Amino acid sequence: MASKLKFSANINTFNACADRYVLEGYGKRRNTDELIKAAQQVEDLSGVELVGKWHINDNNVEQIQRQVTDAGFEVSCVTPDIWASGKWGWGSFTSRDKNIRQDAVREVKNSMEWAKQLNCKVIDLWFGQDGYDYPFQADFHQVWDLLIDGVIECAEHLPEVNIVIEYKPKEPRTHCFVATVGKTLLLLDKVNKPNVGAMIDVGHALQGYENTAESAALLKYFSNKLFYMHFNDNWRMWDDDMTFGSVHTIESLELIYWLDRLDYNGWYALDIFPYREDGVRASNESIKWIKGLHAVLDKIGRDRIADVIASGDAMSASALMREAFLG
Amino acid sequence: MASKLKFSANINTFNACADRYVLEGYGKRRNTDELIKAAQQVEDLSGVELVGKWHINDNNVEQIQRQVTDAGFEVSCVTPDIWASGKWGWGSFTSRDKNIRQDAVREVKNSMEWAKQLNCKVIDLWFGQDGYDYPFQADFHQVWDLLIDGVIECAEHLPEVNIVIEYKPKEPRTHCFVATVGKTLLLLDKVNKPNVGAMIDVGHALQGYENTAESAALLKYFSNKLFYMHFNDNWRMWDDDMTFGSVHTIESLELIYWLDRLDYNGWYALDIFPYREDGVRASNESIKWIKGLHAVLDKIGRDRIADVIASGDAMSASALMREAFLG
Amino acid sequence: MASKLKFSANINTFNACADRYVLEGYGKRRNTDELIKAAQQVEDLSGVELVGKWHINDNNVEQIQRQVTDAGFEVSCVTPDIWASGKWGWGSFTSRDKNIRQDAVREVKNSMEWAKQLNCKVIDLWFGQDGYDYPFQADFHQVWDLLIDGVIECAEHLPEVNIVIEYKPKEPRTHCFVATVGKTLLLLDKVNKPNVGAMIDVGHALQGYENTAESAALLKYFSNKLFYMHFNDNWRMWDDDMTFGSVHTIESLELIYWLDRLDYNGWYALDIFPYREDGVRASNESIKWIKGLHAVLDKIGRDRIADVIASGDAMSASALMREAFLG
Amino acid sequence: MASKLKFSANINTFNACADRYVLEGYGKRRNTDELIKAAQQVEDLSGVELVGKWHINDNNVEQIQRQVTDAGFEVSCVTPDIWASGKWGWGSFTSRDKNIRQDAVREVKNSMEWAKQLNCKVIDLWFGQDGYDYPFQADFHQVWDLLIDGVIECAEHLPEVNIVIEYKPKEPRTHCFVATVGKTLLLLDKVNKPNVGAMIDVGHALQGYENTAESAALLKYFSNKLFYMHFNDNWRMWDDDMTFGSVHTIESLELIYWLDRLDYNGWYALDIFPYREDGVRASNESIKWIKGLHAVLDKIGRDRIADVIASGDAMSASALMREAFLG
Repeated sequence: MASKLKFSANINTFNACADRYVLEGYGKRRNTDELIKAAQQVEDLSGVELVGKWHINDNNVEQIQRQVTDAGFEVSCVTPDIWASGKWGWGSFTSRDKNIRQDAVREVKNSMEWAKQLNCKVIDLWFGQDGYDYPFQADFHQVWDLLIDGVIECAEHLPEVNIVIEYKPKEPRTHCFVATVGKTLLLLDKVNKPNVGAMIDVGHALQGYENTAESAALLKYFSNKLFYMHFNDNWRMWDDDMTFGSVHTIESLELIYWLDRLDYNGWYALDIFPYREDGVRASNESIKWIKGLHAVLDKIGRDRIADVIASGDAMSASALMREAFLG
Repeated sequence: MASKLKFSANINTFNACADRYVLEGYGKRRNTDELIKAAQQVEDLSGVELVGKWHINDNNVEQIQRQVTDAGFEVSCVTPDIWASGKWGWGSFTSRDKNIRQDAVREVKNSMEWAKQLNCKVIDLWFGQDGYDYPFQADFHQVWDLLIDGVIECAEHLPEVNIVIEYKPKEPRTHCFVATVGKTLLLLDKVNKPNVGAMIDVGHALQGYENTAESAALLKYFSNKLFYMHFNDNWRMWDDDMTFGSVHTIESLELIYWLDRLDYNGWYALDIFPYREDGVRASNESIKWIKGLHAVLDKIGRDRIADVIASGDAMSASALMREAFLG
Repeated sequence: MASKLKFSANINTFNACADRYVLEGYGKRRNTDELIKAAQQVEDLSGVELVGKWHINDNNVEQIQRQVTDAGFEVSCVTPDIWASGKWGWGSFTSRDKNIRQDAVREVKNSMEWAKQLNCKVIDLWFGQDGYDYPFQADFHQVWDLLIDGVIECAEHLPEVNIVIEYKPKEPRTHCFVATVGKTLLLLDKVNKPNVGAMIDVGHALQGYENTAESAALLKYFSNKLFYMHFNDNWRMWDDDMTFGSVHTIESLELIYWLDRLDYNGWYALDIFPYREDGVRASNESIKWIKGLHAVLDKIGRDRIADVIASGDAMSASALMREAFLG
Repeated sequence: MASKLKFSANINTFNACADRYVLEGYGKRRNTDELIKAAQQVEDLSGVELVGKWHINDNNVEQIQRQVTDAGFEVSCVTPDIWASGKWGWGSFTSRDKNIRQDAVREVKNSMEWAKQLNCKVIDLWFGQDGYDYPFQADFHQVWDLLIDGVIECAEHLPEVNIVIEYKPKEPRTHCFVATVGKTLLLLDKVNKPNVGAMIDVGHALQGYENTAESAALLKYFSNKLFYMHFNDNWRMWDDDMTFGSVHTIESLELIYWLDRLDYNGWYALDIFPYREDGVRASNESIKWIKGLHAVLDKIGRDRIADVIASGDAMSASALMREAFLG
């Protein structure tokens, strides 16, 4: 039932997107009020993601809660900002500077508390700055001690809020430590807390030559802790953060099928950077692709898909895809 | 009109495919008779590609001509074998050994003559072995002299047979000289013969981060000499030679659209390696995908596609694709 | 003679570098005065690159000329800014908006005039925003008409200033039109002006699976117009803009060797983004790598290198490299 | 002490190498006697790898043992052939055919017994055929049950022989299940047998955008079971199986350094495909690169390297590399 899918988007989707060449961004800058209003223009959106300190702080959390609720949204996820200023440039939990590490843990705990106040179950832990750029720059053992200890400390802080680890092979570092689905599962295993799970960001997985459907299945198999999903698309080499469905069709369907088969019932959250596109239209397109692909499961039948997979017959799979997409 | 598309396949498609691990191949070896019979089982196939010396030689050309005609086929292309034995391992036209170079040119001329006798307009010049593997291994200037001179010599040999250059970034060499659509156009320009043009092998272009639709348009723009097309699919990093349409959907449609817009009226030839699949089914699937995608042009309308392109509006393009594939 | 190499750097190298996550940048923002002062701390630097409107305008060109000269520098290149604000986001010369196109041409002409006033022979034409992000978004024919006509108009404006085309496969667009060395040569050929040539940005070439040495050789072979060089390094998939020599050693030497062999006597200009590094140290490192690699040519001997290349013997090449780097 | 490193090579290194185009191979075919004789020509080689059934079987194991010993070698590793014939094309341990799965397990057990008789501690379990090529072709859960159960069964068969898992992202399948260092560690954890560990094949790790030094450190960190190493080099996108050191210099040194720091004392085994090169020269080159890079550790000092890593200062790392390689 595609009607049961819950869609969310980071409210920054509706803000001007910048890249390293156009730092001012390609569109118009908006404040939080305007971003929430923009979100209301997206059909089928029932959740929003917020970023700690950007949109929420100790002083405005009640007001934001009211605003978001009045606008008809739940908060699906709060993301602590431990990657968006020069301060974090040499790492957050794995910084060589103990003060930075402690600040990072504190940011995460703050976001957990804001999440709780917002009736939000999930915070997103993305270690974008925890990695290295150059050869001979990283102590590969020490950083994992720090990652594991830091996550445990956060997990114990508020056991009723789920921490989801968001892995990514690279960017902004040329190499991130928590790079792949496999390394994420190793981290979950060492942390071993019921409130620490993982998300898949579709584009991050594609960037690492992962099949997103396979990665979702593995998170289920090894941890039963696929807590969240970030949807976007790209050209496979880089995290282009395009609208979902704009490049990959069959692989996207394989992902949607497996999420359904795995009984994933978390949020279908958008994480796109519509640099040159209108954020509302880009969100609508992404959601319509997800819903449309999900409807294909009904159209061609889950049993037939399961049979094709069970057979391993690639040409039957091809024929089924043709039927799905070309009628 | 998809009904007007002409489909061809290399008869080797129906033979056991080997890779560097399974040299005996994954299926059953067949002789030329059996390969032609297998080709007859493919719906909508009206052409076959043959490889010089593998399937044709001075002694059997008349017999093959009869067999192929009796089986209801035209020969769409003859491919000289200048890459499939150790002899060519260090290059064909660019070998450091003059005798090898002369042999290579002779092989090409032989294939041109066989093509003529078979009423075939096209020979496929693929410089797979002309490249290098290691740093400091190639003299980048000398090889282009040899490439240009060699192609001119062949072109003048039989002006009524078209030579199509098939570019590829790598494999079997880690770097091939004629690697991209741009370098191919430079070669065409220097050769400057009316019977020397180019083909796009879809997988080779994908391997080089080319958009195949763009590459087709550029061949038209800079040379008006897109003479032939090889269809297959892959996962973008390597020439996996999968059935066409099995991975890429939207990009495949963009290619089909542009071939139509550019009035390409050459063969839609399959160049796939169905290692673990039945060659007949794999060919049928590929052709059905091409026809099905071509039918989409009628369904959603060439004018609407042209309007979307003219507007440059990515979200309109996304909506049109959703309509095309999800109805 | 490494002593004869001329080194330059964009003065922005000494400014805070930003990426799409850390828009404020990782370091300290500096004004033009401070940037020029910082440049003076780099050993062996005799040139600086300036960006139009960022550092130069009609009002300050004489003052900047004095400042740069007093600081002991030549201006090696002026880069018109046709890519660093939202205005250019949908293209410069290939924008669908005629006014934008005219503005872009005007910017280039302005930079040519500033270059002339600064006794600088080169302006850098990088079409970073001229490309597309999504399928069905580009009209591949129209854009080349616009590119060619625009470059011709600029070239004719001031024939005594050289325009160098800087190609790049992607970023900020997912696909740039002038993407490869091959396409660059096609553009040069159509433009056909003595003052229009090309540069190789090492990282851009690596990103496109080009061997930079081969690309330099091809620019010489097909156009004799390798006018400029941008040095940096990366991990091969993306334009990481790291210090030169930090990742690639043997390939870097192959490039340095061929530049010497091709009698390239233009600038060795740095184009790096030292996000988390000090710009002065990063520049010193890059220059020391270039000089050190160049000194290897003397150490192992150009004749021996030429002999190895002539032989095509990869194992002799390997032994020579071992000698070069491991003594 | 580079003098303490133990070098091995698969004796196939000295045989003709074939690829999918040149199935006959680029060189001369040799029998096992000749391969062992060729191995003797490699300086510093004290071990050889053998492949089950290709070189060893129940009838010749004593004779081979004598031959190898007489030639002055230990057997460093026996590799069961569960990937080199059409039979295994749809998987070994994960085949949908129970008989194939049982045959595969039997092959592995056979190789373990041969290894024991040859006083060899290691067999190499490479699941090259266990994966998928097309979308919707794999049941991602079932295959891991089969992998885990199969490895446990083998491990229990002969606890005194070590099984090393060799991971690879792709080829011969477009996607292999045991693809990355992370997934390998998950497999080791589930299997949980003291005689099951892992190897890193340098080229496989590079193909997956892994930093091989980091992967070695992670195998130590999470399992303490880095049992074996395969050395070769490539251009990062594909398993080109080139001589070690021919492309990557700094990253290779980082690997050699970490192997030393991690007290890795297993074999330094070559796994190269010298298609167009002489196998003896290619092996000599690879070993000389390993030894030469190892000597650099003495030359520049392990303490200084450790200090640079501890500092995280990329420019100090760059300066140290310049000193190492440019003197």
